[in-house]
Amino acid sequence: MILARVYVTLKPAVNDPQGLTVMGGLHSLGYEAVTDVRIGKYMEIRLDGDDPDVAERAIAEMCDQLLANPVIEDFRFVLEPQDG
Amino acid sequence: MILARVYVTLKPAVNDPQGLTVMGGLHSLGYEAVTDVRIGKYMEIRLDGDDPDVAERAIAEMCDQLLANPVIEDFRFVLEPQDG
Repeated sequence: MILARVYVTLKPAVNDPQGLTVMGGLHSLGYEAVTDVRIGKYMEIRLDGDDPDVAERAIAEMCDQLLANPVIEDFRFVLEPQDG
Repeated sequence: MILARVYVTLKPAVNDPQGLTVMGGLHSLGYEAVTDVRIGKYMEIRLDGDDPDVAERAIAEMCDQLLANPVIEDFRFVLEPQDG
């Protein structure tokens, strides 16, 4: 079993209205020190199998095909072997 | 300047219909090895100031008040000093 932790973020040049809204909320709560908020996705994906090379290729393909929008998003991931 | 990387995840006992939908999509694409998908949020928050203790307290408060729903979500974060 392998656990993949996948992080999907908007590319730096892409506007993040959700992040701006959250920043506005934080300012309203008094957190004036906040200068920027960017919001992305975090996914935990568990895979059968123990071969990290196979898992790495599979996760990269999944990101390209479904998990991220390559036009506006970047992705990165780390793999962790799991017991059982 | 401090960068906080905040990870918000559903508590383990909470159903994740979005994750189930993504898992179904991955199975449809042929990735039968996927056994579980859990989806959370990843946020990058930039703060003025250089005191990590102040930043840590502020980020924990922000998570409690706005960024996470403590009834159904857990959060964790890491702080990174930034130049400039």
